[in-house]
Amino acid sequence: ARPRVGYFYTGKTGSQLLTEKIKKLQVYQYQSMPVVVDESVSVYDAICTMFLEDVGTLFVVDKNSSLVGVLSRKDLLRASLGNSNLEAIPVNIIMTRMPNITFCHKDDLIIDVAEKIIEKQIDAVPVVKHTEHGYEVIGRLTKTNMTKVLVDIAKDEII
Amino acid sequence: ARPRVGYFYTGKTGSQLLTEKIKKLQVYQYQSMPVVVDESVSVYDAICTMFLEDVGTLFVVDKNSSLVGVLSRKDLLRASLGNSNLEAIPVNIIMTRMPNITFCHKDDLIIDVAEKIIEKQIDAVPVVKHTEHGYEVIGRLTKTNMTKVLVDIAKDEII
Repeated sequence: ARPRVGYFYTGKTGSQLLTEKIKKLQVYQYQSMPVVVDESVSVYDAICTMFLEDVGTLFVVDKNSSLVGVLSRKDLLRASLGNSNLEAIPVNIIMTRMPNITFCHKDDLIIDVAEKIIEKQIDAVPVVKHTEHGYEVIGRLTKTNMTKVLVDIAKDEII
Repeated sequence: ARPRVGYFYTGKTGSQLLTEKIKKLQVYQYQSMPVVVDESVSVYDAICTMFLEDVGTLFVVDKNSSLVGVLSRKDLLRASLGNSNLEAIPVNIIMTRMPNITFCHKDDLIIDVAEKIIEKQIDAVPVVKHTEHGYEVIGRLTKTNMTKVLVDIAKDEII
């Protein structure tokens, strides 16, 4: 049972306490599974993977499974518009690449990632872990996850 | 100044009051401008409009400006994959059409729309107004808007 108003006085209102709980939410609590493709696959195969896995963003990795790029639906749509032979174009030609990728770690604050998503106008952010080769992709945090956080707050399910 | 714990007792904790404020947020408080195309335009032109306007979802209207369809990036990507002549295909062949469109009104609750967005796995919902011809599109509510709501809650800017 949660404490009620009047039980004690911490100097904070209940709404401040809820706001603080929301601010403390961490990426791992809401992250989804990432979908990755190798940097050598074609744009055509990447589009097929996007439909098969039903995601809006793919992460591109090198032979060490390290993050080297991000592919959004917008990137793939742009590529498909100007090119007739999508099987001949490797994704590493069209992807957004390091160091222009916005990423996060599993214990980062969701709110910080939400602000980055709005500021950079992106749909999803890879959740990464440092390895000896670079960054391994261990999750993804999307605007769908943000919408779920909002629904959970309204349903009182995060507190 | 907001009342502090101890000033009065309404039977509700501050966190319940904040949750109630979040639940009462209405669509018009966060909606964005809609981008519409006529049902006779080609898939090619729709993709160009999507890039020019930098949106993820287009709404399709008939000659009375009534909503008849929705086009997502996913719909356009699917169409562009299978077809070489996108200028020859009208959008009304590939769009999601009434009555399969999820829409909302400007005074609907944002939380209800958020739940629909997750349940139906869509990116955006048109905000409509009844007219003698059908539904006029007056706004759009997207997962980006939901992310902004979340950021505003964390910044204490909705209360």
